[in-house]
Amino acid sequence: MSGTLKIIGLGPGSAGLITPDVKDALETATDAIGYFPYVARVIERSGLTIHGSDNRVELQRAKQALELAGEGRHVVVVSSGDPGVFAMASAVFEAVENGPLSWRELDISVLPGITAMLAAAARLGAPLGHDFCVINLSDNLKPWSIIETRLRLAMEADFAMAFYNPRSKARPEGFEKALDLLKSACEKERLIMFARAVSTPEESLLTVALSDATPDMADMRTMVLLGSRQTRLISRENAAPIVYTPRSMR
Amino acid sequence: MSGTLKIIGLGPGSAGLITPDVKDALETATDAIGYFPYVARVIERSGLTIHGSDNRVELQRAKQALELAGEGRHVVVVSSGDPGVFAMASAVFEAVENGPLSWRELDISVLPGITAMLAAAARLGAPLGHDFCVINLSDNLKPWSIIETRLRLAMEADFAMAFYNPRSKARPEGFEKALDLLKSACEKERLIMFARAVSTPEESLLTVALSDATPDMADMRTMVLLGSRQTRLISRENAAPIVYTPRSMR
Repeated sequence: MSGTLKIIGLGPGSAGLITPDVKDALETATDAIGYFPYVARVIERSGLTIHGSDNRVELQRAKQALELAGEGRHVVVVSSGDPGVFAMASAVFEAVENGPLSWRELDISVLPGITAMLAAAARLGAPLGHDFCVINLSDNLKPWSIIETRLRLAMEADFAMAFYNPRSKARPEGFEKALDLLKSACEKERLIMFARAVSTPEESLLTVALSDATPDMADMRTMVLLGSRQTRLISRENAAPIVYTPRSMR
Repeated sequence: MSGTLKIIGLGPGSAGLITPDVKDALETATDAIGYFPYVARVIERSGLTIHGSDNRVELQRAKQALELAGEGRHVVVVSSGDPGVFAMASAVFEAVENGPLSWRELDISVLPGITAMLAAAARLGAPLGHDFCVINLSDNLKPWSIIETRLRLAMEADFAMAFYNPRSKARPEGFEKALDLLKSACEKERLIMFARAVSTPEESLLTVALSDATPDMADMRTMVLLGSRQTRLISRENAAPIVYTPRSMR
Protein backbone atom coordinates (compact mmCIF):
# COMPACT_ATOMS: atom_id res chain seq x y z
CA MET A 1 0.00 0.00 0.00
CA SER A 2 1.95 3.01 -1.16
CA GLY A 3 0.75 6.50 -0.51
CA THR A 4 1.26 9.68 -2.50
CA LEU A 5 1.90 13.28 -1.60
CA LYS A 6 0.98 16.02 -4.03
CA ILE A 7 1.83 19.61 -3.19
CA ILE A 8 -0.69 21.57 -5.22
CA GLY A 9 -1.43 25.17 -6.15
CA LEU A 10 -5.05 26.37 -6.15
CA GLY A 11 -4.28 29.56 -8.07
CA PRO A 12 -5.33 33.01 -6.86
CA GLY A 13 -9.01 32.32 -6.25
CA SER A 14 -11.21 31.76 -9.29
CA ALA A 15 -12.14 28.21 -10.36
CA GLY A 16 -11.29 29.22 -13.92
CA LEU A 17 -7.63 29.45 -12.91
CA ILE A 18 -7.31 25.97 -11.35
CA THR A 19 -5.47 23.54 -13.65
CA PRO A 20 -7.05 20.19 -14.58
CA ASP A 21 -4.11 18.38 -12.91
CA VAL A 22 -4.87 20.10 -9.61
CA LYS A 23 -8.59 19.43 -9.96
CA ASP A 24 -7.87 15.72 -10.53
CA ALA A 25 -5.57 15.62 -7.50
CA LEU A 26 -8.31 17.11 -5.33
CA GLU A 27 -10.84 14.59 -6.65
CA THR A 28 -8.69 11.54 -5.87
CA ALA A 29 -7.11 12.59 -2.55
CA THR A 30 -7.98 10.99 0.76
CA ASP A 31 -6.54 13.89 2.80
CA ALA A 32 -6.21 17.61 2.15
CA ILE A 33 -3.86 19.54 4.38
CA GLY A 34 -3.30 23.28 4.54
CA TYR A 35 -3.75 26.68 6.09
CA PHE A 36 -7.41 27.22 7.09
CA PRO A 37 -8.36 29.76 4.37
CA TYR A 38 -6.83 27.55 1.66
CA VAL A 39 -8.43 24.25 2.68
CA ALA A 40 -11.69 26.20 2.91
CA ARG A 41 -11.49 26.33 -0.89
CA VAL A 42 -11.46 22.51 -1.16
CA ILE A 43 -14.88 21.01 -1.94
CA GLU A 44 -15.93 18.58 0.80
CA ARG A 45 -16.88 15.04 -0.20
CA SER A 46 -17.07 11.61 1.44
CA GLY A 47 -13.71 9.86 1.47
CA LEU A 48 -11.80 13.11 1.86
CA THR A 49 -10.58 14.26 5.26
CA ILE A 50 -9.75 17.95 5.48
CA HIS A 51 -7.02 18.97 7.95
CA GLY A 52 -6.90 22.76 8.43
CA SER A 53 -4.17 24.39 10.43
CA ASP A 54 -3.06 27.84 11.47
CA ASN A 55 -0.51 30.13 9.87
CA ARG A 56 3.17 29.77 10.85
CA VAL A 57 2.99 26.00 11.46
CA GLU A 58 4.20 25.06 7.99
CA LEU A 59 6.73 22.50 9.20
CA GLN A 60 4.27 20.66 11.45
CA ARG A 61 1.82 20.61 8.56
CA ALA A 62 4.51 19.23 6.25
CA LYS A 63 5.37 16.46 8.71
CA GLN A 64 1.72 15.53 9.12
CA ALA A 65 1.41 15.24 5.34
CA LEU A 66 4.52 13.06 5.06
CA GLU A 67 3.36 10.80 7.89
CA LEU A 68 -0.04 10.29 6.30
CA ALA A 69 1.51 9.54 2.89
CA GLY A 70 3.84 7.08 4.66
CA GLU A 71 0.77 5.31 6.00
CA GLY A 72 -0.51 4.83 2.45
CA ARG A 73 -2.90 7.78 2.22
CA HIS A 74 -3.24 9.96 -0.86
CA VAL A 75 -2.45 13.37 0.47
CA VAL A 76 -2.68 16.82 -1.10
CA VAL A 77 -1.00 19.77 0.56
CA VAL A 78 -2.81 22.85 -0.68
CA SER A 79 -1.37 26.32 -1.20
CA SER A 80 -2.92 29.38 -2.75
CA GLY A 81 -1.27 30.43 -6.02
CA ASP A 82 1.73 28.25 -6.88
CA PRO A 83 3.10 25.93 -4.18
CA GLY A 84 6.70 26.69 -5.19
CA VAL A 85 6.51 30.46 -4.67
CA PHE A 86 6.66 31.37 -0.96
CA ALA A 87 4.36 28.48 -0.17
CA MET A 88 4.30 24.88 1.06
CA ALA A 89 6.69 23.09 -1.35
CA SER A 90 9.86 24.34 0.36
CA ALA A 91 8.45 23.52 3.80
CA VAL A 92 7.69 19.93 2.74
CA PHE A 93 11.17 19.41 1.27
CA GLU A 94 12.78 20.91 4.39
CA ALA A 95 10.88 18.28 6.41
CA VAL A 96 11.95 15.54 3.95
CA GLU A 97 15.62 16.51 4.22
CA ASN A 98 15.56 16.50 8.00
CA GLY A 99 13.18 13.56 8.46
CA PRO A 100 13.54 9.75 8.32
CA LEU A 101 15.17 8.35 5.17
CA SER A 102 11.94 6.51 4.32
CA TRP A 103 10.34 9.88 3.48
CA ARG A 104 12.75 10.24 0.55
CA GLU A 105 11.27 7.13 -1.03
CA LEU A 106 7.71 8.48 -0.98
CA ASP A 107 5.97 9.39 -4.24
CA ILE A 108 6.04 13.19 -3.90
CA SER A 109 5.15 15.65 -6.66
CA VAL A 110 4.53 19.36 -7.01
CA LEU A 111 1.63 20.53 -9.21
CA PRO A 112 2.10 24.14 -10.26
CA GLY A 113 -0.60 26.79 -10.06
CA ILE A 114 -1.18 30.33 -11.28
CA THR A 115 0.86 32.39 -8.83
CA ALA A 116 -0.49 35.69 -7.50
CA MET A 117 2.05 37.90 -9.26
CA LEU A 118 1.18 36.54 -12.71
CA ALA A 119 -2.56 36.74 -12.09
CA ALA A 120 -2.09 40.33 -10.91
CA ALA A 121 0.14 41.19 -13.86
CA ALA A 122 -2.42 39.79 -16.29
CA ARG A 123 -5.21 41.96 -14.83
CA LEU A 124 -3.01 45.07 -15.03
CA GLY A 125 -1.60 44.49 -18.53
CA ALA A 126 1.95 43.15 -18.75
CA PRO A 127 4.07 44.92 -16.09
CA LEU A 128 6.32 41.83 -15.76
CA GLY A 129 6.89 41.60 -19.52
CA HIS A 130 10.65 42.12 -19.16
CA ASP A 131 13.27 41.02 -16.59
CA PHE A 132 11.94 41.11 -13.04
CA CYS A 133 12.56 39.91 -9.51
CA VAL A 134 10.32 38.48 -6.85
CA ILE A 135 10.81 39.31 -3.18
CA ASN A 136 8.97 38.19 -0.06
CA LEU A 137 8.72 41.32 2.10
CA SER A 138 7.98 39.36 5.26
CA ASP A 139 10.85 39.33 7.75
CA ASN A 140 9.42 36.38 9.69
CA LEU A 141 12.05 34.03 8.29
CA LYS A 142 14.87 36.32 7.15
CA PRO A 143 16.47 39.44 8.59
CA TRP A 144 15.25 42.81 7.34
CA SER A 145 18.81 43.69 6.24
CA ILE A 146 18.61 41.03 3.50
CA ILE A 147 15.36 42.49 2.20
CA GLU A 148 16.91 45.95 2.14
CA THR A 149 20.04 44.77 0.31
CA ARG A 150 17.96 42.93 -2.28
CA LEU A 151 15.72 45.95 -2.86
CA ARG A 152 18.77 48.20 -3.38
CA LEU A 153 20.44 45.81 -5.82
CA ALA A 154 17.17 45.15 -7.67
CA MET A 155 16.69 48.91 -8.14
CA GLU A 156 20.26 49.23 -9.41
CA ALA A 157 19.59 46.37 -11.88
CA ASP A 158 16.34 48.13 -12.90
CA PHE A 159 14.26 44.99 -12.52
CA ALA A 160 10.50 45.27 -12.37
CA MET A 161 9.56 43.79 -9.00
CA ALA A 162 6.84 41.66 -7.49
CA PHE A 163 6.40 41.78 -3.72
CA TYR A 164 4.70 38.97 -1.82
CA ASN A 165 3.44 39.44 1.76
CA PRO A 166 3.90 43.21 1.79
CA ARG A 167 2.07 43.73 5.06
CA SER A 168 0.36 41.85 7.86
CA LYS A 169 -1.18 42.80 11.17
CA ALA A 170 1.91 41.39 12.90
CA ARG A 171 4.29 43.47 10.76
CA PRO A 172 2.59 46.79 9.95
CA GLU A 173 5.86 48.74 9.66
CA GLY A 174 7.82 46.60 7.14
CA PHE A 175 6.03 47.81 4.04
CA GLU A 176 6.44 51.44 5.09
CA LYS A 177 10.21 50.91 5.35
CA ALA A 178 10.29 49.21 1.94
CA LEU A 179 8.27 52.03 0.35
CA ASP A 180 10.56 54.67 1.87
CA LEU A 181 13.60 52.89 0.47
CA LEU A 182 12.05 52.58 -3.01
CA LYS A 183 11.02 56.26 -2.96
CA SER A 184 14.54 57.31 -1.98
CA ALA A 185 16.10 55.68 -5.04
CA CYS A 186 13.47 55.67 -7.81
CA GLU A 187 12.11 58.59 -9.80
CA LYS A 188 8.78 60.01 -8.53
CA GLU A 189 6.82 58.86 -11.57
CA ARG A 190 7.80 55.20 -11.20
CA LEU A 191 4.62 53.12 -11.46
CA ILE A 192 3.54 51.01 -8.52
CA MET A 193 0.55 48.68 -8.60
CA PHE A 194 -1.60 47.25 -5.82
CA ALA A 195 -3.61 44.21 -6.86
CA ARG A 196 -5.83 42.89 -4.09
CA ALA A 197 -7.64 39.52 -4.06
CA VAL A 198 -7.22 39.08 -7.81
CA SER A 199 -9.86 36.90 -9.51
CA THR A 200 -12.14 36.92 -6.45
CA PRO A 201 -15.31 39.01 -5.93
CA GLU A 202 -13.25 41.34 -3.70
CA GLU A 203 -10.70 42.13 -6.42
CA SER A 204 -9.40 45.69 -6.55
CA LEU A 205 -6.64 47.19 -8.67
CA LEU A 206 -4.81 50.48 -8.13
CA THR A 207 -1.91 51.98 -10.09
CA VAL A 208 -0.23 55.16 -8.83
CA ALA A 209 3.05 57.03 -9.13
CA LEU A 210 5.48 55.82 -6.48
CA SER A 211 5.52 59.26 -4.84
CA ASP A 212 1.76 58.93 -4.21
CA ALA A 213 1.95 55.42 -2.74
CA THR A 214 1.07 54.99 0.94
CA PRO A 215 1.53 51.93 3.18
CA ASP A 216 -2.21 51.48 3.71
CA MET A 217 -2.66 50.71 -0.01
CA ALA A 218 -1.49 47.16 0.77
CA ASP A 219 -2.80 44.54 3.15
CA MET A 220 -2.34 40.77 3.61
CA ARG A 221 -4.26 40.00 0.43
CA THR A 222 -2.43 42.50 -1.79
CA MET A 223 0.22 41.73 -4.38
CA VAL A 224 2.42 44.78 -4.99
CA LEU A 225 4.18 45.24 -8.34
CA LEU A 226 6.74 47.93 -9.09
CA GLY A 227 7.54 48.86 -12.67
CA SER A 228 11.06 49.24 -14.00
CA ARG A 229 12.22 52.57 -15.46
CA GLN A 230 10.87 51.30 -18.80
CA THR A 231 7.34 50.49 -17.61
CA ARG A 232 4.58 52.50 -19.29
CA LEU A 233 0.94 53.37 -18.67
CA ILE A 234 -1.67 53.54 -21.42
CA SER A 235 -4.69 55.56 -20.32
CA ARG A 236 -8.13 54.70 -21.66
CA GLU A 237 -11.43 56.61 -21.78
CA ASN A 238 -13.78 53.92 -20.53
CA ALA A 239 -11.61 51.38 -18.82
CA ALA A 240 -8.78 51.00 -16.33
CA PRO A 241 -5.34 51.98 -17.60
CA ILE A 242 -3.02 49.32 -19.03
CA VAL A 243 0.46 49.01 -17.50
CA TYR A 244 3.14 47.19 -19.46
CA THR A 245 6.90 46.84 -19.71
CA PRO A 246 8.12 46.88 -23.31
CA ARG A 247 10.13 43.97 -24.71
CA SER A 248 12.89 46.18 -26.09
CA MET A 249 15.71 48.14 -24.46
CA ARG A 250 17.89 49.96 -26.96
CA MET B 1 -20.72 44.35 -33.23
CA SER B 2 -17.90 44.50 -30.73
CA GLY B 3 -14.96 42.18 -30.90
CA THR B 4 -12.73 40.86 -28.17
CA LEU B 5 -9.02 40.20 -27.87
CA LYS B 6 -7.77 37.68 -25.34
CA ILE B 7 -4.05 37.19 -24.90
CA ILE B 8 -3.82 33.69 -23.53
CA GLY B 9 -1.19 31.35 -22.08
CA LEU B 10 -1.24 27.67 -23.08
CA GLY B 11 1.12 26.60 -20.29
CA PRO B 12 4.28 24.56 -20.93
CA GLY B 13 2.77 21.74 -22.99
CA SER B 14 0.52 19.30 -21.16
CA ALA B 15 -3.27 19.64 -21.41
CA GLY B 16 -3.41 19.13 -17.65
CA LEU B 17 -1.75 22.51 -17.18
CA ILE B 18 -4.16 24.58 -19.32
CA THR B 19 -6.57 26.62 -17.18
CA PRO B 20 -10.34 26.34 -17.75
CA ASP B 21 -10.44 30.06 -18.61
CA VAL B 22 -7.96 29.51 -21.44
CA LYS B 23 -9.81 26.42 -22.63
CA ASP B 24 -13.06 28.42 -22.76
CA ALA B 25 -11.37 31.23 -24.68
CA LEU B 26 -10.10 28.74 -27.27
CA GLU B 27 -13.56 27.20 -27.62
CA THR B 28 -15.31 30.53 -28.27
CA ALA B 29 -12.72 32.31 -30.43
CA THR B 30 -13.17 32.99 -34.12
CA ASP B 31 -9.46 33.59 -34.73
CA ALA B 32 -6.31 32.21 -33.11
CA ILE B 33 -3.08 34.07 -33.79
CA GLY B 34 0.45 33.09 -32.83
CA TYR B 35 3.86 31.70 -33.57
CA PHE B 36 3.60 28.48 -35.64
CA PRO B 37 4.55 25.96 -32.91
CA TYR B 38 2.10 27.55 -30.46
CA VAL B 39 -0.93 27.72 -32.77
CA ALA B 40 -0.12 24.09 -33.68
CA ARG B 41 -1.33 23.28 -30.15
CA VAL B 42 -4.78 24.81 -30.83
CA ILE B 43 -7.42 22.20 -31.73
CA GLU B 44 -8.90 22.93 -35.15
CA ARG B 45 -12.67 23.29 -35.49
CA SER B 46 -15.17 24.87 -37.84
CA GLY B 47 -15.67 28.57 -37.10
CA LEU B 48 -12.08 29.04 -35.97
CA THR B 49 -9.46 30.49 -38.30
CA ILE B 50 -5.88 29.79 -37.30
CA HIS B 51 -3.26 32.37 -38.27
CA GLY B 52 0.29 31.09 -37.75
CA SER B 53 3.30 33.32 -38.16
CA ASP B 54 7.05 33.16 -37.83
CA ASN B 55 9.27 34.09 -34.92
CA ARG B 56 10.40 37.73 -34.56
CA VAL B 57 7.26 39.22 -36.11
CA GLU B 58 5.54 39.82 -32.78
CA LEU B 59 4.47 43.38 -33.56
CA GLN B 60 2.91 42.50 -36.92
CA ARG B 61 1.07 39.65 -35.24
CA ALA B 62 -0.15 42.03 -32.52
CA LYS B 63 -1.44 44.50 -35.11
CA GLN B 64 -3.22 41.77 -37.02
CA ALA B 65 -4.94 40.67 -33.80
CA LEU B 66 -6.02 44.23 -32.96
CA GLU B 67 -7.34 44.81 -36.47
CA LEU B 68 -9.40 41.62 -36.40
CA ALA B 69 -10.82 42.47 -32.96
CA GLY B 70 -11.63 45.95 -34.30
CA GLU B 71 -13.66 44.28 -37.07
CA GLY B 72 -15.76 42.49 -34.43
CA ARG B 73 -13.95 39.14 -34.37
CA HIS B 74 -13.25 37.19 -31.19
CA VAL B 75 -9.51 36.83 -31.28
CA VAL B 76 -7.12 34.87 -29.11
CA VAL B 77 -3.40 35.55 -29.27
CA VAL B 78 -1.68 32.40 -28.06
CA SER B 79 1.62 32.14 -26.22
CA SER B 80 3.29 29.17 -24.64
CA GLY B 81 3.54 29.39 -20.84
CA ASP B 82 2.23 32.71 -19.51
CA PRO B 83 1.57 35.51 -22.02
CA GLY B 84 2.96 38.14 -19.64
CA VAL B 85 6.43 36.59 -19.24
CA PHE B 86 8.63 37.24 -22.30
CA ALA B 87 5.65 36.58 -24.56
CA MET B 88 2.91 38.29 -26.55
CA ALA B 89 1.19 40.52 -23.97
CA SER B 90 3.86 43.23 -24.05
CA ALA B 91 3.93 43.16 -27.85
CA VAL B 92 0.17 43.67 -28.06
CA PHE B 93 0.24 46.59 -25.61
CA GLU B 94 3.16 48.16 -27.46
CA ALA B 95 1.00 48.05 -30.60
CA VAL B 96 -1.97 49.49 -28.68
CA GLU B 97 0.08 52.41 -27.34
CA ASN B 98 1.43 53.29 -30.77
CA GLY B 99 -1.72 52.52 -32.76
CA PRO B 100 -5.02 54.32 -33.42
CA LEU B 101 -6.92 55.55 -30.35
CA SER B 102 -9.80 53.22 -31.22
CA TRP B 103 -7.62 50.25 -30.21
CA ARG B 104 -7.64 51.51 -26.60
CA GLU B 105 -11.41 51.07 -26.51
CA LEU B 106 -11.27 47.40 -27.49
CA ASP B 107 -12.18 44.72 -24.98
CA ILE B 108 -8.68 43.32 -24.32
CA SER B 109 -7.79 40.87 -21.57
CA VAL B 110 -4.82 38.74 -20.56
CA LEU B 111 -5.47 35.19 -19.35
CA PRO B 112 -2.52 33.88 -17.36
CA GLY B 113 -0.93 30.47 -17.86
CA ILE B 114 1.59 28.24 -16.10
CA THR B 115 4.89 29.80 -17.07
CA ALA B 116 7.88 27.60 -17.95
CA MET B 117 9.96 28.50 -14.89
CA LEU B 118 7.25 27.46 -12.44
CA ALA B 119 6.52 24.23 -14.31
CA ALA B 120 10.26 23.48 -14.32
CA ALA B 121 10.63 24.39 -10.64
CA ALA B 122 7.73 22.09 -9.73
CA ARG B 123 9.32 19.13 -11.52
CA LEU B 124 12.67 19.75 -9.79
CA GLY B 125 11.31 20.39 -6.28
CA ALA B 126 11.14 24.00 -5.12
CA PRO B 127 14.29 25.80 -6.29
CA LEU B 128 12.37 29.10 -6.55
CA GLY B 129 10.99 28.79 -3.03
CA HIS B 130 12.72 31.97 -1.85
CA ASP B 131 13.48 35.36 -3.47
CA PHE B 132 14.42 35.02 -7.13
CA CYS B 133 14.84 36.90 -10.38
CA VAL B 134 13.85 36.18 -13.94
CA ILE B 135 16.06 37.17 -16.85
CA ASN B 136 15.64 36.76 -20.61
CA LEU B 137 19.11 35.82 -21.88
CA SER B 138 18.31 36.74 -25.48
CA ASP B 139 20.03 39.88 -26.67
CA ASN B 140 17.71 40.28 -29.65
CA LEU B 141 15.93 43.21 -28.01
CA LYS B 142 18.39 44.48 -25.42
CA PRO B 143 22.14 44.99 -25.36
CA TRP B 144 24.29 42.25 -23.86
CA SER B 145 25.73 44.76 -21.37
CA ILE B 146 22.34 44.98 -19.62
CA ILE B 147 22.19 41.20 -19.27
CA GLU B 148 25.68 41.17 -17.81
CA THR B 149 24.92 43.95 -15.32
CA ARG B 150 21.74 42.23 -14.20
CA LEU B 151 23.52 38.89 -13.74
CA ARG B 152 26.22 40.55 -11.63
CA LEU B 153 23.75 42.38 -9.40
CA ALA B 154 21.52 39.32 -9.08
CA MET B 155 24.51 37.25 -7.91
CA GLU B 156 25.41 39.97 -5.42
CA ALA B 157 21.81 39.92 -4.13
CA ASP B 158 22.00 36.10 -3.96
CA PHE B 159 18.74 35.63 -5.82
CA ALA B 160 17.90 32.23 -7.23
CA MET B 161 17.54 32.84 -10.98
CA ALA B 162 15.38 31.66 -13.85
CA PHE B 163 16.71 32.15 -17.37
CA TYR B 164 14.41 32.24 -20.38
CA ASN B 165 15.72 31.84 -23.93
CA PRO B 166 19.21 30.73 -22.88
CA ARG B 167 20.28 29.69 -26.34
CA SER B 168 19.14 29.64 -29.94
CA LYS B 169 20.70 28.73 -33.26
CA ALA B 170 21.01 32.44 -34.03
CA ARG B 171 22.78 33.16 -30.73
CA PRO B 172 24.91 30.14 -29.80
CA GLU B 173 27.50 32.17 -27.87
CA GLY B 174 25.31 34.12 -25.44
CA PHE B 175 24.72 31.29 -23.00
CA GLU B 176 28.42 30.46 -22.91
CA LYS B 177 29.18 34.05 -21.91
CA ALA B 178 26.49 33.96 -19.23
CA LEU B 179 27.79 30.66 -17.84
CA ASP B 180 31.35 32.00 -17.73
CA LEU B 181 30.19 35.04 -15.80
CA LEU B 182 28.21 32.94 -13.32
CA LYS B 183 31.15 30.57 -12.83
CA SER B 184 33.51 33.48 -12.17
CA ALA B 185 31.43 34.77 -9.26
CA CYS B 186 29.62 31.79 -7.73
CA GLU B 187 31.07 28.93 -5.71
CA LYS B 188 31.76 25.72 -7.71
CA GLU B 189 29.06 23.70 -5.95
CA ARG B 190 26.26 26.13 -6.82
CA LEU B 191 23.37 24.12 -8.25
CA ILE B 192 22.24 24.73 -11.82
CA MET B 193 19.26 23.01 -13.39
CA PHE B 194 18.36 22.37 -17.02
CA ALA B 195 14.69 21.58 -17.56
CA ARG B 196 13.85 20.83 -21.18
CA ALA B 197 10.35 20.59 -22.68
CA VAL B 198 8.72 20.23 -19.27
CA SER B 199 5.38 18.38 -19.22
CA THR B 200 5.82 17.09 -22.80
CA PRO B 201 6.89 13.59 -23.90
CA GLU B 202 10.37 15.01 -24.59
CA GLU B 203 10.87 16.26 -21.04
CA SER B 204 14.34 15.94 -19.57
CA LEU B 205 15.76 17.25 -16.30
CA LEU B 206 19.38 17.67 -15.31
CA THR B 207 20.89 19.15 -12.13
CA VAL B 208 24.65 19.66 -11.88
CA ALA B 209 27.19 21.71 -9.96
CA LEU B 210 27.83 25.01 -11.76
CA SER B 211 31.47 24.04 -12.38
CA ASP B 212 30.24 21.03 -14.40
CA ALA B 213 27.75 22.97 -16.52
CA THR B 214 28.44 23.28 -20.25
CA PRO B 215 26.70 25.45 -22.83
CA ASP B 216 25.35 22.47 -24.78
CA MET B 217 23.18 21.48 -21.80
CA ALA B 218 20.69 24.13 -22.94
CA ASP B 219 18.83 24.60 -26.20
CA MET B 220 15.82 26.63 -27.35
CA ARG B 221 13.40 24.48 -25.38
CA THR B 222 15.37 24.55 -22.11
CA MET B 223 14.56 26.55 -19.02
CA VAL B 224 17.69 27.12 -16.93
CA LEU B 225 17.42 27.66 -13.17
CA LEU B 226 20.29 28.64 -10.90
CA GLY B 227 20.06 28.10 -7.17
CA SER B 228 20.98 30.73 -4.60
CA ARG B 229 23.73 30.05 -2.05
CA GLN B 230 21.00 28.56 0.15
CA THR B 231 19.65 26.06 -2.40
CA ARG B 232 19.96 22.41 -1.38
CA LEU B 233 19.86 19.00 -3.05
CA ILE B 234 18.23 15.94 -1.48
CA SER B 235 19.50 12.74 -3.06
CA ARG B 236 17.20 9.73 -3.30
CA GLU B 237 17.83 6.02 -3.91
CA ASN B 238 15.22 5.33 -6.55
CA ALA B 239 14.25 8.70 -7.93
CA ALA B 240 15.67 11.95 -9.26
CA PRO B 241 17.10 14.28 -6.62
CA ILE B 242 14.97 17.05 -5.16
CA VAL B 243 16.28 20.61 -5.36
CA TYR B 244 14.80 23.24 -3.07
CA THR B 245 15.54 26.63 -1.57
CA PRO B 246 14.63 26.83 2.13
CA ARG B 247 12.19 29.42 3.40
CA SER B 248 14.46 30.62 6.18
CA MET B 249 17.63 32.70 6.21
CA ARG B 250 18.95 33.25 9.70
